[in-house]
Amino acid sequence: MTPFLGEVIGTMVLILFGGGVVGGVVLRQSKAEGAGWIVITAGWGMGVAVAVYMVGGISGAHINPAVTLGLAIADAFPWADVPLYIAGQFLGAFIGAVLVWLHYYPHWAKTPDPAAKRAVFSTDPAIAHGPANLFSEVLGTFILVLGVLAIGANQFTEGMFPLVVGLLVFAIGLSMGGTTGYAINPARDLGPRIAHALLPIAGKGPSGWRYAWVPVAGPCIGGLLGGLFYRVVF
Amino acid sequence: MTPFLGEVIGTMVLILFGGGVVGGVVLRQSKAEGAGWIVITAGWGMGVAVAVYMVGGISGAHINPAVTLGLAIADAFPWADVPLYIAGQFLGAFIGAVLVWLHYYPHWAKTPDPAAKRAVFSTDPAIAHGPANLFSEVLGTFILVLGVLAIGANQFTEGMFPLVVGLLVFAIGLSMGGTTGYAINPARDLGPRIAHALLPIAGKGPSGWRYAWVPVAGPCIGGLLGGLFYRVVF
Amino acid sequence: MTPFLGEVIGTMVLILFGGGVVGGVVLRQSKAEGAGWIVITAGWGMGVAVAVYMVGGISGAHINPAVTLGLAIADAFPWADVPLYIAGQFLGAFIGAVLVWLHYYPHWAKTPDPAAKRAVFSTDPAIAHGPANLFSEVLGTFILVLGVLAIGANQFTEGMFPLVVGLLVFAIGLSMGGTTGYAINPARDLGPRIAHALLPIAGKGPSGWRYAWVPVAGPCIGGLLGGLFYRVVF
Amino acid sequence: MTPFLGEVIGTMVLILFGGGVVGGVVLRQSKAEGAGWIVITAGWGMGVAVAVYMVGGISGAHINPAVTLGLAIADAFPWADVPLYIAGQFLGAFIGAVLVWLHYYPHWAKTPDPAAKRAVFSTDPAIAHGPANLFSEVLGTFILVLGVLAIGANQFTEGMFPLVVGLLVFAIGLSMGGTTGYAINPARDLGPRIAHALLPIAGKGPSGWRYAWVPVAGPCIGGLLGGLFYRVVF
Repeated sequence: MTPFLGEVIGTMVLILFGGGVVGGVVLRQSKAEGAGWIVITAGWGMGVAVAVYMVGGISGAHINPAVTLGLAIADAFPWADVPLYIAGQFLGAFIGAVLVWLHYYPHWAKTPDPAAKRAVFSTDPAIAHGPANLFSEVLGTFILVLGVLAIGANQFTEGMFPLVVGLLVFAIGLSMGGTTGYAINPARDLGPRIAHALLPIAGKGPSGWRYAWVPVAGPCIGGLLGGLFYRVVF
Repeated sequence: MTPFLGEVIGTMVLILFGGGVVGGVVLRQSKAEGAGWIVITAGWGMGVAVAVYMVGGISGAHINPAVTLGLAIADAFPWADVPLYIAGQFLGAFIGAVLVWLHYYPHWAKTPDPAAKRAVFSTDPAIAHGPANLFSEVLGTFILVLGVLAIGANQFTEGMFPLVVGLLVFAIGLSMGGTTGYAINPARDLGPRIAHALLPIAGKGPSGWRYAWVPVAGPCIGGLLGGLFYRVVF
Repeated sequence: MTPFLGEVIGTMVLILFGGGVVGGVVLRQSKAEGAGWIVITAGWGMGVAVAVYMVGGISGAHINPAVTLGLAIADAFPWADVPLYIAGQFLGAFIGAVLVWLHYYPHWAKTPDPAAKRAVFSTDPAIAHGPANLFSEVLGTFILVLGVLAIGANQFTEGMFPLVVGLLVFAIGLSMGGTTGYAINPARDLGPRIAHALLPIAGKGPSGWRYAWVPVAGPCIGGLLGGLFYRVVF
Repeated sequence: MTPFLGEVIGTMVLILFGGGVVGGVVLRQSKAEGAGWIVITAGWGMGVAVAVYMVGGISGAHINPAVTLGLAIADAFPWADVPLYIAGQFLGAFIGAVLVWLHYYPHWAKTPDPAAKRAVFSTDPAIAHGPANLFSEVLGTFILVLGVLAIGANQFTEGMFPLVVGLLVFAIGLSMGGTTGYAINPARDLGPRIAHALLPIAGKGPSGWRYAWVPVAGPCIGGLLGGLFYRVVF
C-alpha cells in the first residue's frame, strides 16, 4: 500500500470513530444519546489510537495536515510529500463522513435540531469569539504536534506509541475541548463540513461556513508553531 | 487444552463480561443501574481484552465467527478449522449467557420491562430499519476484522496485543454502537438469544427472532469484507 | 522488605484506594459525590494496579486470600506460606480502612445514612438472597483467580502485568459488581468490617455481621475453584 | 534543553491539562460543563502522563516540588539541584495558569460564581477542617511519592513508566480527591493561585489565601515522609 492510501484509510477511520461518537451522543434515539463528554473524548482518543495502529507502518499515520506541516517544519518529514499527504487526509476525512452519515441513516430524520446534526460533521465554538476561538485551536494543535514530536523521541516498545498518541488526543479533548470542540486538524473539520454541505442529510441546516476558517487556520498555525518550538527548544 | 476448548472458554468469558455489564446497567436494583454508555462499552472492551489474554495462546482467541471467517478469507487461518471454531464460539456464548442469568438471579423478577431483560442477552436496533441496521453491523464488523488484521501486523511486545484489541472493541462500541448495539459477532448475539429462549427467566418476553438474522448476517458479511479488504489492499 | 510486609503494604494501598473511592462517591459534600459506577470501578481497578506495581516484586502482590488459596491449589504457591500471607492481608486491609476513616474525617458527621457509611468499609448485597449472593461472589472470584493465572502465563514485558491485573478487576467490577458489590476478596471485606465495628465513626450503624460470611466464604470457594480449574484444564 | 527548562515546560503542560479540565467542567457554556469527576480525574491523570512523556528524558519530569523533595530525601536526587527544580516548577505552573486563562477567555465573564472560577486555578477543601485537610494532602502526596519510587523500581519497558505514573495520579484523584481536591503538589496549587491573584479575570473573587498554606505544607510533608518511608522500608 502507498503512503497516500495509508493516509486516506487512516483519516477515514479517524472520522468514522470521531464523527461516529458525536453522532452516538447527540442524535436522537441512539443508544448512546446523552452519554456525555467522557464518551466523546474517549471515542476520539481511541479512534486516533486505532487509526495509528492500522496505518502507522504504512504512512506514519499523520492523518492530520497540522501534524504533516509540523513534522515538515521540524525537519522530520520532507516538504515535497506534504501536498500528497494533505490530499489523502482530506479525501479520507470526506469518505469517513459519508460512512458516518450512512451508519446513522434513520437517525437524521428523528433529530429535529440542525445544529446537533452538523456537530456530527464539524466543530463550532461554545462562545463565538474570533480571536479566542483561534487561540484555542492554535494552542490545542501546538500541544498536539509538540507532544507527538516529544513523545516520539522516547525509546518506545513497538506497539506502544499509537496508544500514547491516542491518550494525548484523549487528554487534549478532556482538558481543552470545551471551548471550540478541539478540531486541531483541518482535514477533520473541513472535509466533513464539505460532506455536510453535499450530502442529502434529512432536515439539515447551514454548514457553518462563516466559522470554517478558524478550525483550518488555527491548527495550521498551531502545528507549525509546535514543530518550530520542538526544533528550536528540544 | 485444545483450541476448541480455548474458544469455548474465551467466548464464555466474553459473554460473562459483556452480558454481565448490560445486566448491571439495565436490571433493577443493580448497584450499576443506569451507569450509562461508558460503563457498557468499557465492560465489553475490557471483557474482550481479558478473554484474549486468557486463551490467546491456546486458540488465538477469535471468540467470534466473523473474525474466524475474516481470518480464513485473508489466508491467515485454515478454512478446515472454521466449523470447529464456530461451534466452540456458539457453545461458549451459550454457557456464558447461562452464567449471566444465574449471576443476576434475584434481579430478573424485580425488573418489569421484558425488553430490558432481553437486552442482557441479545441486541436490538435503536430504530428498526432493515437495510440501515444491516449496514451498521456490516460496517462495525468490517472495522473490527480489518483492525484486528492491521493491528496484528505491528511488532507487538508480548502482552500488549490483547489490550489493543480490547481498546478496538471499546472504540467500536463508543463510536458505532448507538444504532444496533454493536453485535459485530454472530455467536455473541445468537448464542445468548437461544439461551434467552430456553431459560426460565422470570417475566421474560419474546426473544426477538424477527431481528435475529441481522446480527448474524451483518457480522458474517462484514468480517468477510474486512478480511478480503486486508488481503487485497494491505 | 519481607513478603509479609509486602502483603501488608499492598493490601493497605488496595483498601486506601478502594475504600477511598467508595467514600468519595457516597459521603456527603465530597467533591466526587454521586460520581457513579465508572468512578467506583476505575478506582478499585487502578488501586489494584498501583498496589501490584508497588509490592509485586516483593511478595508477588496477592493482596487477597482468595488469590493466595487459588495459587496454592494450582501448585503455584507453597501451602506453608499461606497463613502468613493471609495474616498480612488482613492486617493491611485493617490499616487501610483506618486511613480511609481518617482521610474522610469531617465527612462522616455530615452523612446521615449509616448504610452509606458502612459501604465505604464492606459490601452488602443489592438484593439479599443467600444462594444467589454466594454464587455471585464465587463466580467473580473464580474469574479473578483463573484470570490471574491464565493472564500470568503470557510472556509479559516487565511492567505490563500489574496494569492488566488492574484492568481485570476493573472489568469484574463493571460487569459483575452490580449484585453484591464484588468483594471477591475476604480480607478486603472482613478487615474493614472489623475496622467499622471498632472505630468511633460519627453516626455509624451496625456492621452487617449477618451477611459477613458471604464475602468470605464465596471468595474462598471461588478462588479454590479457579485455581483447580486452571490446574486441570489449562 | 536544560533540566530547568524541562521542569518549566513539563509543569506548564501539567497545569494546562489540569487547570484546563477543571475549566472545561466548571465554566459556563463549556462543551464539557458538568461532565463530572471521571473527566476531571482522567484529565489530570492523562495530563501527568503526557507531561512525563514529554520531558521525562530531559529532567526526569518531577513537575512537583513534593516529588523533588521526596526523591532527594530518598537519596535518588541531589539536594543541590532541588532549588532550581522547584523554581522551574513554580514558573511552569504560573505560565500554564496564564494559558488556561487565555484558553477560556470568553467563558470567565459568562460564569457568575467566583468560587468556580478560582477552582480552575487552585484547590479548596470540601469541608474546611484544618487538621483533616492537612492530613488528606499529606496522605495523598505520601502515596504519590512512595508510588513513584516503588513503581520506578520495576524493570519497565521504555515508554511504559510515564503512563503508569499518570494512572497513579488518576487513581489518587478518583479515590482520595473528594476531600481537598488533591493538590498533592505545592507548585500546582500556589503557582496558579498567584496567577489568579494577578490576572485580570472577569468577575473574579478572592484568591483564598487563608487556605493556601495547606496545599503547600501538606504535599511537602507527605513527599518527605514518602521518600523517607521508601528509603527505610523498601
